[in-house]
Amino acid sequence: MLRRLLAVLMLVCSAPSAAPTPQPAEIIAYRQSLFRVIRWNVGYLVEMASGRAEWNAADFARRAARVAALSRQLDEAFVPGSDSGALTDAKPEIWTDPEDFAGRLRDFQAQARALARVARGDDIDAAKAEFGKTMRTCKACHDRYRAE
Amino acid sequence: MLRRLLAVLMLVCSAPSAAPTPQPAEIIAYRQSLFRVIRWNVGYLVEMASGRAEWNAADFARRAARVAALSRQLDEAFVPGSDSGALTDAKPEIWTDPEDFAGRLRDFQAQARALARVARGDDIDAAKAEFGKTMRTCKACHDRYRAE
Repeated sequence: MLRRLLAVLMLVCSAPSAAPTPQPAEIIAYRQSLFRVIRWNVGYLVEMASGRAEWNAADFARRAARVAALSRQLDEAFVPGSDSGALTDAKPEIWTDPEDFAGRLRDFQAQARALARVARGDDIDAAKAEFGKTMRTCKACHDRYRAE
Repeated sequence: MLRRLLAVLMLVCSAPSAAPTPQPAEIIAYRQSLFRVIRWNVGYLVEMASGRAEWNAADFARRAARVAALSRQLDEAFVPGSDSGALTDAKPEIWTDPEDFAGRLRDFQAQARALARVARGDDIDAAKAEFGKTMRTCKACHDRYRAE
């Protein structure tokens, strides 16, 4: 419980001591940029995992590591107040049910880390399986918190 | 089964646009997103290095590591053909003088890596000095290759 509360607070108070205080529109632009950079790399993972592109173990591992690192930066991307101020697909429920949202974000981060770890090995099927699991953590959050 | 799952996931995570042959407009959007995510983190580094925000060694090191990692992703952000197709500040000289451009990009990447390394230590002045050097590698490229 305390751990969950702390996780929410961390998400909410994401601007650390070193904060410039970004405006909502800047936070939204940052959020969208971050997702775009994640998606860019996920796109290559999808191609390899689906067999449409040749499997390249080093590239798969490198991009999985990127996604894991980038996922952590989402901690700063949903600051309260950034529900409006620019066009955004982020639904208000993110801020009205922050504990659930924080949990789903943590699931994605943990799963992306697991993917990055497995991707460093040489078990392609295991890497594909972890990738599938990672994509399901994307979906679990998007289904509820991203507008169409 | 895996194939079906991936087909669904591709729809869900709207990922495939980036791979394998992104269109110029997508590359430009990726490039701008990457720079925005870099700038977000650099903003905090500037605040700490300038003394406007309290020095937080862990946060400085974390953001320096991010900038170093993100700088490597710029390797994919200036694909030939991405000089037009959407609004961009990237000047044509990037593609007409690719060797010079690549050299300046490498300088930034190497310096960002050096910054990340020094930032893991406990010498604040050294970290600030490396940060200054890193910012100069940004400027060296922007002065020549970024339109106002």
